Amino acid sequence: VSDPRPIGVFDSGVGGLTVLSEIVRRLPAESTVYLGDNERAPYGTRPDDEVVAFSTQSIDELVARDVKAVVVACNTSTAVALGHLRRRYDLPILGVVRPGASAAALATRNRRVGVIATPATVRSHAYFNAIKEENPAVEVYEHATPAFVPMVEAGRLSGPQVAVTVAEELAPLLGERDAAGEFVFPLPPSARIDTLLLGCTHYPLLRPVLATAVGERVAIVDSATATASALAELLSVNGLEAPGSSRGTAADAGHDGHDRPVDQAGIPIHVQLTTGDVDRFRSIAGRLFADAFTDVQGVELGAPVR
Amino acid sequence: VSDPRPIGVFDSGVGGLTVLSEIVRRLPAESTVYLGDNERAPYGTRPDDEVVAFSTQSIDELVARDVKAVVVACNTSTAVALGHLRRRYDLPILGVVRPGASAAALATRNRRVGVIATPATVRSHAYFNAIKEENPAVEVYEHATPAFVPMVEAGRLSGPQVAVTVAEELAPLLGERDAAGEFVFPLPPSARIDTLLLGCTHYPLLRPVLATAVGERVAIVDSATATASALAELLSVNGLEAPGSSRGTAADAGHDGHDRPVDQAGIPIHVQLTTGDVDRFRSIAGRLFADAFTDVQGVELGAPVR
Repeated sequence: VSDPRPIGVFDSGVGGLTVLSEIVRRLPAESTVYLGDNERAPYGTRPDDEVVAFSTQSIDELVARDVKAVVVACNTSTAVALGHLRRRYDLPILGVVRPGASAAALATRNRRVGVIATPATVRSHAYFNAIKEENPAVEVYEHATPAFVPMVEAGRLSGPQVAVTVAEELAPLLGERDAAGEFVFPLPPSARIDTLLLGCTHYPLLRPVLATAVGERVAIVDSATATASALAELLSVNGLEAPGSSRGTAADAGHDGHDRPVDQAGIPIHVQLTTGDVDRFRSIAGRLFADAFTDVQGVELGAPVR
Repeated sequence: VSDPRPIGVFDSGVGGLTVLSEIVRRLPAESTVYLGDNERAPYGTRPDDEVVAFSTQSIDELVARDVKAVVVACNTSTAVALGHLRRRYDLPILGVVRPGASAAALATRNRRVGVIATPATVRSHAYFNAIKEENPAVEVYEHATPAFVPMVEAGRLSGPQVAVTVAEELAPLLGERDAAGEFVFPLPPSARIDTLLLGCTHYPLLRPVLATAVGERVAIVDSATATASALAELLSVNGLEAPGSSRGTAADAGHDGHDRPVDQAGIPIHVQLTTGDVDRFRSIAGRLFADAFTDVQGVELGAPVR
């Protein structure tokens, strides 16, 4: 059983490219179509019905391009619209929240997990609820880090100034205020998080500087990697893997008597669509992912749907 | 979208009850049918074609009982037969290896993961391969701990003697031999595992004593919990959740205008089948899980299938 159709990846902007990047790394035989609704990003400040309508329009476009599954690589859309989207479409739709939450709940030893995300995602408590659903005994500390997305989109991923900003943003999560209102480090071990969940698709690009800031005792779990893992399992269980995906399949292909090399099972194709400015998308994508995603095309979405 | 049919859980024996237990904890609205092929356990010493034939017979029985999905809670069957089973049946089939491997690959910080399992599972290198598939940069140290299964089945889960046995069995994973052949502790940090994957369904019952043995710096990841998480995601994505499963669904049900309490969405039913001795199964299940799984029935499987 195999299915050569592409995987659709949807985000309000460029942040979902970290999820795309992990999908391509984890599932190198799969083709992908990415759609960034940059024209109307960010979604975090919009009312729920707009998020649902825009997400639906975007995924209609992916479905028109014959995707076999959709990853909603947008935390806001996952938190607000996932149930609606799953009822609307016949194909498997995966969000980014639960895979990340599940991985964090499994990774913590002391049952204290910190979650950093945009203010909108923190207000939705999507990660808090998802982690509690996995294991109610886990303490979840949510913390908004609004400075990170603009910093990442500007291509500022390392260096002393970035390290200072990251340390300042993480302070409320890693320390505690004393009587004078100053943060005190370190917390006693019993109060420390041992797992930090990156609840925003931009944040994996800051992973090295985040790792330095939190120290080696804290596991960093990112939703992008966890979602790519969950997608691999989903494709496998549902018989949707591309030809030549796993070692098993590749080995089978080599023995199918047709005498064709395994690597001709299909060269994966990756297309990126944006509702916004194509040059700006290509420039940010190039800055963050070098030459990985260069087939950027403009797209106009169909009429809003009900 | 919801589906009240039960989840089928298959194991060669009683070990899969840890997976069942996690499924019931994680998905309290779901009914289950467990099948333990105790008569022919363990599978680890059998040739591949027998494992495939016995697994198929067992899952045929679960399918005849109208399950909506199957969890293969048996490491040997997952390693040997999962591909075959997925091709044979139309319904989603989940194994225990990949969810555990994925969780371990996400949990490690220093990219050193230890895997403990039965000798048969270690020989199959199923976890090694699955972790490498998640992230080839992770170093995987597989180690067979043959004393654990008999100890667990005898109900010996704690106490000083169990602690000594556990420490002895883990020694090769946690220490290293010096010139005289003695194990030296501790390893330098650069050589220590920071994540221990329990690659046998019996082992979660030893989790407290294992946690003491490895120390607080090592995350313990068990396949049972990881598989229950993956199952939750799978049911959700495929629209197979039982009525009243999630908060969202329950809240909807409360507002559907039919004025019926949410808890009448259906009381889950749990049935355990064994091909072996019913009293012995009930006795072990009772020793390990108190009164959780007491509806034990004998079953005779149909003719072997090709």
